[in-house]
Parts: sequence; C-alpha cells; structure tokens
Amino acid sequence: MRPENTRPAAETLAAFYAGVRVEDLPPETIHAVRRHVLDTLGASLAGVRQPEPEAAFATARIAYGDSGPALLWGRAQTAAPAAAALVNGTAAHALELDDASGCDHSGAVVVPAVLAALPLAAGADEGDLIAAVAIGYDLGRRVLEASGGYNAHNNAGWHSTGTCGVFGAAAAVARLLACDEATTRNAFGIAGSFASGTWAFMSDGAMTKRLHPGHAAASGVLAVLLARSGMTGPAAIFDAPWGGFLPTYARDEADWAALTSGLGTDWRIHRSSIKPYASCRGTHAAVEAMLRLRGEGASVRNISAIRVNVHPTIVRMCAATSVTTLLDAQMSLPYAVAVALVRGAADLPMFSEAVRRDPAVLDQARRVEVVESVEPMTNVAAELVLDFTDGAQRRMRIDVPAGSATNPLPDDGVIAKYRSLAAPILGAGQAAALEDAVLRLGRGVQPAELLGALHLPGR
Amino acid sequence: MRPENTRPAAETLAAFYAGVRVEDLPPETIHAVRRHVLDTLGASLAGVRQPEPEAAFATARIAYGDSGPALLWGRAQTAAPAAAALVNGTAAHALELDDASGCDHSGAVVVPAVLAALPLAAGADEGDLIAAVAIGYDLGRRVLEASGGYNAHNNAGWHSTGTCGVFGAAAAVARLLACDEATTRNAFGIAGSFASGTWAFMSDGAMTKRLHPGHAAASGVLAVLLARSGMTGPAAIFDAPWGGFLPTYARDEADWAALTSGLGTDWRIHRSSIKPYASCRGTHAAVEAMLRLRGEGASVRNISAIRVNVHPTIVRMCAATSVTTLLDAQMSLPYAVAVALVRGAADLPMFSEAVRRDPAVLDQARRVEVVESVEPMTNVAAELVLDFTDGAQRRMRIDVPAGSATNPLPDDGVIAKYRSLAAPILGAGQAAALEDAVLRLGRGVQPAELLGALHLPGR
Repeated sequence: MRPENTRPAAETLAAFYAGVRVEDLPPETIHAVRRHVLDTLGASLAGVRQPEPEAAFATARIAYGDSGPALLWGRAQTAAPAAAALVNGTAAHALELDDASGCDHSGAVVVPAVLAALPLAAGADEGDLIAAVAIGYDLGRRVLEASGGYNAHNNAGWHSTGTCGVFGAAAAVARLLACDEATTRNAFGIAGSFASGTWAFMSDGAMTKRLHPGHAAASGVLAVLLARSGMTGPAAIFDAPWGGFLPTYARDEADWAALTSGLGTDWRIHRSSIKPYASCRGTHAAVEAMLRLRGEGASVRNISAIRVNVHPTIVRMCAATSVTTLLDAQMSLPYAVAVALVRGAADLPMFSEAVRRDPAVLDQARRVEVVESVEPMTNVAAELVLDFTDGAQRRMRIDVPAGSATNPLPDDGVIAKYRSLAAPILGAGQAAALEDAVLRLGRGVQPAELLGALHLPGR
Repeated sequence: MRPENTRPAAETLAAFYAGVRVEDLPPETIHAVRRHVLDTLGASLAGVRQPEPEAAFATARIAYGDSGPALLWGRAQTAAPAAAALVNGTAAHALELDDASGCDHSGAVVVPAVLAALPLAAGADEGDLIAAVAIGYDLGRRVLEASGGYNAHNNAGWHSTGTCGVFGAAAAVARLLACDEATTRNAFGIAGSFASGTWAFMSDGAMTKRLHPGHAAASGVLAVLLARSGMTGPAAIFDAPWGGFLPTYARDEADWAALTSGLGTDWRIHRSSIKPYASCRGTHAAVEAMLRLRGEGASVRNISAIRVNVHPTIVRMCAATSVTTLLDAQMSLPYAVAVALVRGAADLPMFSEAVRRDPAVLDQARRVEVVESVEPMTNVAAELVLDFTDGAQRRMRIDVPAGSATNPLPDDGVIAKYRSLAAPILGAGQAAALEDAVLRLGRGVQPAELLGALHLPGR
C-alpha cells in the first residue's frame, strides 16, 4: 500500500504536466519525440488497410457518425476526434511495426490521441505538440512501472497498452488542449474508468490486440473532453485503497514511487524502443543474434539444434509455433528466428501468408526450443544457442537489442523504415513532405503542415 | 480454474442468445422487461439535467460529432448511436433512482444500449426489443455472479455496473441487430476489451460513478458494431487462463457455472430490483424498517440510540456520514435512515442540498451506528435496532426490502414512480404516451412509437 497521508499521485502529476513547456524538455527528448512520431506514422500508414483498422473505420462511421474535423491517416475521409483516435491507433498497431517497451506501444496510443485532438486545440503550436507527446509517453510508462513493470502487469492478464496507455493518452491530450491543473487531474481520474484490455486475444489470435491502442487513444480523448465539460474524476485514481488503479489492477506488485520519481528529469520516452523487425519486441534479441550468426556462416545445413534462453514472460508470450494468422506469426519466437535463419530477414514481408506457408521456414521453426533462462535477463534480452553438425556450439547473448534507447537505431535507420512503410501509401512525394514536417518539429513547423501531409486527397 | 476441455462459455452463450425469440420468454419475464424499461426511462428523464449527463452530452457532441439517428432522451437533439448510449446511460444513473441488484444497475446499461441501436435495426419489432432487453439483463447478471457475486467483485475494487454491464449491453445489442452466433460471440470477446470502472469515485464522490453505465452501454454498442464490421474477439474471453475475464478480474472468486447455469429457464432479470427510495440499494432495508417503526410511533423525541446491522460490504460502502455531494448522501446509510426518521420519506427531494443542510437530519445521521452483522445476511438486508428513552428496545430485520423480485413493488407503485419522474420533464401527456407504449410492449406496439414519445420536440 502507498504510504498514508501522502498527496494523491494524480495531483502531483497534474500539477507538473499542466505546466510543462517545450523549453523544459532536453534536446534529446525533443528529438526522441520526432523519431517516435515519424516511426508511429510509418507503422500506421503501412497498417491502414489491415482488417482491424478497416473494421474500426467502418464501425466509427456508424457508431459515432461519418464526419468531423480530425484526419484519418492515409484515408481521404475525416472523422470526429474520438473516432479518428480509434481508427488511427488501431492502424498504428495493426502490423506490430510500432514502437514498444513504453506503456507498451506508447506511440500507437499517444500519437493518434494527440493528432486527433489537434483540431480542437486552436492555439497549439509545435512546442505544445512536442510537449504533449513527451508527456503522453511519460505517464503511460510511469503507470506501467508503478504497476510492477511489464512482466508483472502483463502476466497478471492485463494488456498494458490499454490499461496504462489510456492515462498516457489523457495526459497528452490534456496538455495539448492547455487544460489547467484541476481539469488535468480530473481527466486522469476519468481515464481510470476506461482502463481495460487483456491478453485473452492470445488464446486464438483474435484481432482485439490491434484495437487496444486505438481504444486507449479514443478513451484518453474522451476523458479529457469530459473533464473539460465539467465532469470530475477521483483525485485518488491511482492510490485509493478501494478502486484505485494500483490497488485494483496491480494489488501486491505496485511500485508507488515510479509514478512520480524523476518527474521532469527522467523522461520515460527514452525507455521506448523503435522496432527494426516486424515481430514482438520480445523476439528481437534472438532475431538479431540469429542474423549476426548467419552472417558468420550459420545456415540450415550446418546447424543441428537451436535453443533460445529468454525471460519466463517471453516463454509464455512467444513460444508458440502456430502461424495461422499474422498475429500468431508475429508473436512466435520460433517463427521469427526460423525466418531470420532461412530468409535472412524479419521485416514485414517475412510474416506474409506466403512465407508463413514456406515448409523450409516451418521446418526450422519446429526445431527452435524456447527455454526459460537460468541466468537473470530482461524480457527484451535473449541468448541464442546453436549446435552445429560438426559438434561445435555457438552462443550469443544480446541484452539490449537494436532499437532500444541505449542501443538506438540511427536516425537513418528510423527514416529508412518510415520511407519503406509510408511511401507505398502516400506516394514518395507526400511521404517526404510528411517526413520533413515531422523532423522539423521544434524547428519551425506548423502543426497543420504535419496534418496536411497525412491526408490522402482525391480518393 | 474452469474445468479443462469444456467449451468456451462465450460460445455457449452466443449460441443460445442468438436464437432467443420473444416466444421463448415466460410471460412474467416479458412483464419484467416492461417494468424495468419504464423504471429506467423515468429515472433517466429525471436525471437528464444533472451535471454528469450534461457533461456527457457536451462531450459527445465534440468527441463524436453532433448528429446521428439515435434519440437523446428528454432532449430535442439526436446523436450517433454510441453517443446516445453514453449520454442516456449516464442520465439513467444520475440520480441513483434506476434499478439495482442486476449487474448492478442493469437498466441504465442495457436499455440505453438497446434504444441507441434501434435506428440501426431496420427489421426489429417489439418482440426483438423485448428479447434484447431480457438478454442484456441476463448476461450482465451472469457475469457478475460468475465473478463471485456482487460483494466479492465490488469489494475487489470493480464497479460491476461497468465491468459486467458491458457484456450485458453487447448481448442486448447483438440480439436486437439479429447478429448470428459467430458475430455475437465476437462481440462478447470484443466487449471484454472494454470492461472497466472501479470504486475509486468513493474516495471523493467523483462524478464518474454516474458515467459508468453510459460508458458500458456505449462500449456494448461499439463491440457489436465492430464484430459486425469483421473484427474478431477471443472466444475464450471469459475463460482464457491468460487474460480471460474471470481469471483476470475475479481470480480466485470465480463461479464458472453461473455463466451458463439455468440458461433460458432462470432469466436473471428477475434478480434485479426496482428502487422505491433514492439512495443506494444497500440502504433500503434499513430505511424501510425505519419508516415502519416511525409509523408505529418511533420519533426523534423517544429514540435514544440507532444501530443498523448490515453485511460487511455495506459497512464499507455506506457507513460514511459525509453529505457534501448528492452522491455522498445517496451512499450514506446514516443519512438515509436519519432523513427517513426526521422527514418520513427517502425519495429524491430528501437528498436535495436543502435537506442535506437540515441540522435536524444531520444530528440524527451522526447518531446512526452502522455495524457488521453478526448473523449472516445479504448486502440488501438490514436489522434496525432502536433504543428508546424509556429503556425499551425495538429490532426489525428486513431481509428482502420492497422492490425485490420476491417482494416486488406492485405495478401501480412502479407506474407512480415513473410518472412522478417523467411528467416534469416530458409533460403529463407525453409521459402518458410513453408509459402506454412501454406497457404495451409485446401487445402490439411499434418500437418507433416508444422512441417517438421519448423525444422532446421544440426545445
């Protein structure tokens, strides 16, 4: 339990976030915002024609009406703000290409919420937009850490993208709309009424995984607009012994201090990773190791056994070999390692139905043994152990896979990924205009420029 | 844990509900639908100008757009279906006058969801509407019972109106829209991604309590429309060991059999109560006892001490004496008993700000001692113990307060309550037309008649 007689965490957070200006952010944090916005937009544009965002789009037009001021990315239509957040957030996660290790998938929650609310934020400039995104990533991740961290919270059944993400979306939108401290605190309290999403989709690969960031984004928008309309939320939303988020969703695992520790100095966006591969972040270290060893000569012809030592959470989450659906394959560590070995890549085309049916890949996937690591490791680390036919053995442990803040993809890599995903949808010219607008954030760009480049005219 | 190798509960439920026709319902269940719809509409109309539905209304117009085919009850405007469900559901619970002991507050969740979806259900007749409402009450209550029942689930922090209600709303809307079995099952799976709402509002009387039924109603509409648009939800939404609703929200308290036991014979709408007083259902037995003893001569002049023995959940929920807000007063057993003693009534005017400031009432409220009952009792029962100044003592235990299915308000009482609440908003003539349409449900009424009478023209 939280120590008694302390100030409700939501009050401390609201007081701080309501006052943040872009000038308060370190330059590297501002640059992280640019990188994560660009990466999220690329992932979203690539995903826009997937069945999940298409279903969300069709639904939003019926459930919420078919017009409004907010842009639907990569579409010609516009929508009401909450509807746009739902559709764009679902698109952003539709191909598992969006960032990870935040709340998790913070980009797919925060960026759609912020851009959906932008038409409501008459006076917001690029600095407000940057501050809003940084704040959204910050609070989403803090709530996850306060819930005991990714492993504890997600293993308990919660899909943190939804449960923690909604607070990040609310925080971002509240700042974008220049809400005062009390309104911001009420928005956090109301967001707590919308915190939902579990891992039940893993039981049969249901499409709801992709919906969760969109739902969290839309709920964050809704929470802020309710607060602005005069609805109050509990100030003790995180800490109330009865029904507070941490006592209810995290019971004994809570780490109360994480909600506010290092506020304003340790911006949690830096704990978010940009994914080089099109699979679950928990598979990346093993894929990276396999690609490196393949570069050193490992092949299907000279390997006799493949073992991967990982965190217990990853055994639970990623040990299955079923690749019936795209989601199945993207959550399968055996498949990701096998496709990296056989095809030498793990980008989006490697998870297509055609490759998912390649007997050479499937044969290898069946050989991959996923084991709980004896030595402590995080849920993004892995040790790949290859036995060779000549009796030799090769081990490679990767603790920080490429794409993490401490082992970041270079800007060039982030931009190349964005271009490969955005250009087929927007066309090269418009994709370049959008890239330019995002990378100029904080250096003299109007938010409207960014929005304009996201719209798909004439279709 | 649920026994292995059994069919996912959502499949069993979807298969059954998708095939229910009004002819399958016992006459008393059809009549219960009429009574609960009428009671919900009365409660909603009385509540429409409260700050919570006003905030929801203002928000929905911004977040979701300002038009659509669904009626906003007691208003001149229309809205998109999910927006109408949000606003009307919030109004229905705004004054704590709606029914209880279902999911809980099933009416405020199910009826707004069904009527919001009605414009999308071109071919639906009165029988479909009745079946939809009965199904909604049924599943919401079953999920609550499967979660270990009201006390276990709500004491763990969950506000069952939201967490269980969303399944009821989805079930009702799926049936109204004549969804097939697979779509219905997917809707249940998707609804599981929207299950939220906790008791954090109790920490400071926040307005989110009133929002929860509206949110559950809107989420149920959304879940069904997503399923109709091709989104899949997990078939194992209730039972998946990882992220299933019961393992995640109910852990060790789950009663798996309640999900499906007596399906089609024991319609759970009969476990829902219609409230004669304007306070939490947990206060009603004590209020009823006080009113009876007052009728026998008990008064502030001859009582020296007041004690109420109740279930531990009610001690937690209703023992506070703060009456700062309307919600505070409606959740305060000491206040409800005191106002019954001093004023001889516990209807809505007794919870107004003026009465909440009456020193005579507040003096008595401070004297009421709320104690955990030594003898077993349910959370709607109470034993009132009065010590008199002459040394006498009088005890009255009420296990089933008026308004329960086994001790129902007579139809006249339900109708009188409805009229007192609806007529001031709609005018006596239109209120009578609406009453007539509801009471003719299943006896030859078009759903459009019912809707028409809910609309407030010319304002």
